[in-house]
Amino acid sequence: MRVLSGIQPTGRFHWGNYFGAIQQYIALQNNEQAFYFIANLHALTTVRDPALLQEYVWEAAVDLLALGLDPDQASLFVQSDVPEISELTWLLMTVTQMHLLEKCHAYKDKKAKGIAADAGLFTYPVLMAADIILYDSDVVPVGNDQVQHIEVTRDVAQRFNHLYETEVFVLPNASVLDQTAKVPGTDGEKMSKSYNNTIEIFLPEKKLKKKINSIKTDSKAVEDPKDPESCPVYALYRLFADEQHQQELAERYRAGGMGYGEAKKQVLDAALEYFGEAREKRLQLEADPDYVRDVLKAGAKAAREKGRTVLERARDACGLKQFATGQ
Amino acid sequence: MRVLSGIQPTGRFHWGNYFGAIQQYIALQNNEQAFYFIANLHALTTVRDPALLQEYVWEAAVDLLALGLDPDQASLFVQSDVPEISELTWLLMTVTQMHLLEKCHAYKDKKAKGIAADAGLFTYPVLMAADIILYDSDVVPVGNDQVQHIEVTRDVAQRFNHLYETEVFVLPNASVLDQTAKVPGTDGEKMSKSYNNTIEIFLPEKKLKKKINSIKTDSKAVEDPKDPESCPVYALYRLFADEQHQQELAERYRAGGMGYGEAKKQVLDAALEYFGEAREKRLQLEADPDYVRDVLKAGAKAAREKGRTVLERARDACGLKQFATGQ
Repeated sequence: MRVLSGIQPTGRFHWGNYFGAIQQYIALQNNEQAFYFIANLHALTTVRDPALLQEYVWEAAVDLLALGLDPDQASLFVQSDVPEISELTWLLMTVTQMHLLEKCHAYKDKKAKGIAADAGLFTYPVLMAADIILYDSDVVPVGNDQVQHIEVTRDVAQRFNHLYETEVFVLPNASVLDQTAKVPGTDGEKMSKSYNNTIEIFLPEKKLKKKINSIKTDSKAVEDPKDPESCPVYALYRLFADEQHQQELAERYRAGGMGYGEAKKQVLDAALEYFGEAREKRLQLEADPDYVRDVLKAGAKAAREKGRTVLERARDACGLKQFATGQ
Repeated sequence: MRVLSGIQPTGRFHWGNYFGAIQQYIALQNNEQAFYFIANLHALTTVRDPALLQEYVWEAAVDLLALGLDPDQASLFVQSDVPEISELTWLLMTVTQMHLLEKCHAYKDKKAKGIAADAGLFTYPVLMAADIILYDSDVVPVGNDQVQHIEVTRDVAQRFNHLYETEVFVLPNASVLDQTAKVPGTDGEKMSKSYNNTIEIFLPEKKLKKKINSIKTDSKAVEDPKDPESCPVYALYRLFADEQHQQELAERYRAGGMGYGEAKKQVLDAALEYFGEAREKRLQLEADPDYVRDVLKAGAKAAREKGRTVLERARDACGLKQFATGQ
């Protein structure tokens, strides 16, 4: 089984990213073949600062390796290092029916709000289809909001196969991520970059402490009994602690006599421990950028090797003989 | 000055193509640099028969060389042999405003007729913008119906330059083709593939004669005086004959005593003479496919060399560092 995961480099990864997706992505690396790519071509539709985009891409690679992505098991590459993706995108564009794109959320929502959209936003499901189809991907782990795009991918692949009377493309299946874990941000709402309430995984300890201390809680006094279930601090603690520790902290909430500051301290300690190995690994990686570059090079090489075979099948199917190479 | 001309391989070239565009394209080859490409990626939106598309591409190349395109002066290549075009297309897609594409004729007309459109038809002005921008083209000769697309190209190039605060792209200018020459088809309407009334340049003599004989004329008897100005046969004769011969035939029309069959014979003879050198050249080219392939290879090489520099500028501008090559 070949698994493909794409990660948008639109900022540093936070706890919401980790527990909602990255952790589960990485767990899939022991499949027969696993490709992970950093989707900088997609990010172009929102990040228009070249230095920032490069930084996000680089940090995403380092973060993923620190978090346990193992280059011996899986291939990690940057999307724009695989030009075959863009080539396949156009071939797919010619068989993608407009109504499929018109109903996709990202564009529809923006249009409904009266915001001027770019063609990149409108057509990015076609780029995503190429991302997936290029490697004969069988399974694509996605959040609920992305299931629609896998449907589009299947429709596009199927229409190409049908129009050219050949089974040139593999139809991928969505594997829906478990996003039931509650990851509140510092304001108690769902942690999300768009709410500006995120806690980044690899913040330096001092900044991490400050961020955690900024989590909004109710105004109960130290002596008051407190409800763990409605408290974002406790919800975050649950992500990092085992059952026993969770119960212990819950009891202290209910008993009263513990301030939120103390609970926040527990979250800080638990998070530092949970990500301890990753934080140490990250320091090593930061000290060895050549290693990271080599990983990305090897990943792109593997992706292109597979991608070229699929692109050649597609080109043959629709009659794009290569005159320039004599093939 | 760098001139770029794209030619759609959607069928064999006819007299309308020649006098409306190809003749003028070829005349531009003595510019400092001239690129000619056979637009098979565009053709994918309409030609979905792989064998037919390959045939059209090949015949287009042979026809152009036969008609005087000189590989020592200009580069001739097949669009799909230059993958940089697809790469640039996506970069441009992310800065192309939807309203620009929504107002483009090809899509608008189809939508107005209630015909389901594909994303390829909707976004092909972006591919066309990439075709043009990729070589820093200064001038693009186009028919009146394509002036709109050059405007879109300028808008897209300008927006990219603006968003990334750099003059990365050259803004091209349209050079509008002279399409005043009247080229009626066999039914007297404008010669066009969509009217199924074309006379192909390189038809074998017998078929050419048959096609010319099928031109519709009025039912005047041989002895009747005839009006050359309203006769499609005479209009076609004017394309091939010099002033003196045109006057001589016009006088025979007005004098009466000449049937349309005789006028058609004159058209056949004049066309065979006009394209005589090209027809001979074509026979040589058909006998030497390796030469044609070498021309296309050399053309693609030249196009890619130039295209890579522009693509690199664009990638640098928007922050797509190549991790895979270490650049």
